[in-house]
Amino acid sequence: MASANTIFIAVIGAGGVGKCFLAQLRDLAARRPSPQLSLCYIATSRKALYNDDYSTINLENAIDALAASSKPPPALADVVAYLTNAPGKAIIVDNTSSQDVAEAYPTALRAGVSIVTPNKKAFSGSYQLWRDIFQGSAASGAMVYHESSVGAGLPVISTLKDLVDTGDEVTKIEGVFSGTMSFLFNSFAPVTGSGGKWSEEVKKAKALGYTEPDPRDDLNGLDVARKLTILARIAGLPVESPNSFPVESLIPTELESCSSGNEFIERLPDFDGQMEEKKTSAGEKVLRYVGSIDVVTEKVKVGLETFDPSHPIAALKGSDNIISFYTKRYGSNPLIVQGAGAGGDVTAMGVTADLIKVIGQLA
Amino acid sequence: MASANTIFIAVIGAGGVGKCFLAQLRDLAARRPSPQLSLCYIATSRKALYNDDYSTINLENAIDALAASSKPPPALADVVAYLTNAPGKAIIVDNTSSQDVAEAYPTALRAGVSIVTPNKKAFSGSYQLWRDIFQGSAASGAMVYHESSVGAGLPVISTLKDLVDTGDEVTKIEGVFSGTMSFLFNSFAPVTGSGGKWSEEVKKAKALGYTEPDPRDDLNGLDVARKLTILARIAGLPVESPNSFPVESLIPTELESCSSGNEFIERLPDFDGQMEEKKTSAGEKVLRYVGSIDVVTEKVKVGLETFDPSHPIAALKGSDNIISFYTKRYGSNPLIVQGAGAGGDVTAMGVTADLIKVIGQLA
Repeated sequence: MASANTIFIAVIGAGGVGKCFLAQLRDLAARRPSPQLSLCYIATSRKALYNDDYSTINLENAIDALAASSKPPPALADVVAYLTNAPGKAIIVDNTSSQDVAEAYPTALRAGVSIVTPNKKAFSGSYQLWRDIFQGSAASGAMVYHESSVGAGLPVISTLKDLVDTGDEVTKIEGVFSGTMSFLFNSFAPVTGSGGKWSEEVKKAKALGYTEPDPRDDLNGLDVARKLTILARIAGLPVESPNSFPVESLIPTELESCSSGNEFIERLPDFDGQMEEKKTSAGEKVLRYVGSIDVVTEKVKVGLETFDPSHPIAALKGSDNIISFYTKRYGSNPLIVQGAGAGGDVTAMGVTADLIKVIGQLA
Repeated sequence: MASANTIFIAVIGAGGVGKCFLAQLRDLAARRPSPQLSLCYIATSRKALYNDDYSTINLENAIDALAASSKPPPALADVVAYLTNAPGKAIIVDNTSSQDVAEAYPTALRAGVSIVTPNKKAFSGSYQLWRDIFQGSAASGAMVYHESSVGAGLPVISTLKDLVDTGDEVTKIEGVFSGTMSFLFNSFAPVTGSGGKWSEEVKKAKALGYTEPDPRDDLNGLDVARKLTILARIAGLPVESPNSFPVESLIPTELESCSSGNEFIERLPDFDGQMEEKKTSAGEKVLRYVGSIDVVTEKVKVGLETFDPSHPIAALKGSDNIISFYTKRYGSNPLIVQGAGAGGDVTAMGVTADLIKVIGQLA
């Protein structure tokens, strides 16, 4: 039963991250009796589950109950209206990567509904949407937290915000922001040994589930460009979109028009020479796919760079991300955060940690 | 003038960290008009400055005004009473390393006054004091934040809390927790080259201000043991005190009774052979002074260990700290945080970031 300080939670998305988040929310609600956390809405793009009287959906079997629901999801404006009328404060947890849901954030925030999400689209789309989101938040006091939009559960956005909010001057941010690219280059151009053929490494990464179904969705660099857009904006640069700075695509021009990921993988060996040449020309250094934001010169870029084998970016392992913050206070040795930057559990962890922070401020 | 949602801030300590914090607080108060932040009390161990009507002390010249004050600091219980009667919520920012101030936290917290501090003593003293502090906080809802008690402004405590609060299982924490030890071993036993004599490196570190006035206060390992105590407790281990687990001191037994740091430095060369032997016996590996918490077996220890040159702990530079969190969700590759773990500005940054978080929950 809802008590006076119940917090109403609406979860959108029940894919890999969504399922992990629901499990974490179930455990969180069980551990923390106050304030009461009430799941009052859950939806995918096809189905929704909610009760007009805001009664709580059982977290033990929410996914099954959603699957059994015959309701289609209402329009997002109606979801916001439903939450605005809840008998307590409300939070939308958006575990989708949907542009449509992202575009509803300003409306939700202006109506006093807080947002917690790993959805990159909201923060790396047009600069106008970014402004609308934070103006909506400022107008009502509703909060928007999105730690997992960069580096999953790693403390990247919170760290950058702390640096900025306490008055440090961030001069440069540099790192490996894609687990897929990390895995590919740690195998293709390792610090010791010569590594495999590029097309073989891409094939292996796909087989291990480290790439999107079509690996070109990783190799085009857009995912990294989106993350850089988010960090650059937090650091104070009004980046217009992820297309407004140089992004090096690793898709050979000839393969851009392949009709499928499988066709791409089949034809990629023909282009191994191009990548081999880049690896060889790096000499003593190693090739890595990095993103960097030079805050001082306002230059953002994504692409291949070479690093000395002793550099922390070169020494990365597996599919880890690494993010270095160079600031006035930290001087020549940056503040570094490193670890898994993708995966359902760690992404959901960032979402749950954000949720706890929002609850702390709402309760 | 105080408005309804003014937050009253009492600052204790005006040394290196305290001065940096006051500068950051001044900038923060200027940038954020709401809620109004009012410095209503400032004190050192000898002097205090405050107004009975809680009128604001000007942050532009607080240090000078404090120096000109002739008031001795009141008893801490009286400071708590003064803050409890303030016409708004109050926060004590303790920038001292005083055991006495630490022991007043439970009283302050129970009275509804929140605490923000880099003071290790409160969280690494007796387990009873730890319990009193968090029970006091739970009873009133007043908050206690202490990011800078481990690794200064690095996101160490917040990251560990996020891991624990979201239900991850932390299995092991390992790292270099002392800027002094980091500097000493990165110079004495570098990954490439042979490094200098131990006594020379200690002398150099002292000259550069990287050690306490008496270097034995670093070499005894107690500072690292205190940090480990704090992290172990957050991870769920009821560590009784920093003396309740093995801590390897690097002070030769014969020099424990030296009457001064200078005498210690003078006689240290006689013992270079001992450290040289340890360096040599590490072989291909390098010697580092680390702390580790095995959460599973409940073993905490501090001392010398050897690491492969490719290990992130071996590759550390300058006086950087590195902290690795091994957890169930992160698997074999830990979540790593690295960077400067000491210094006035970065320590104050952790304090200011905590203050912002507390304000967000009080306002």
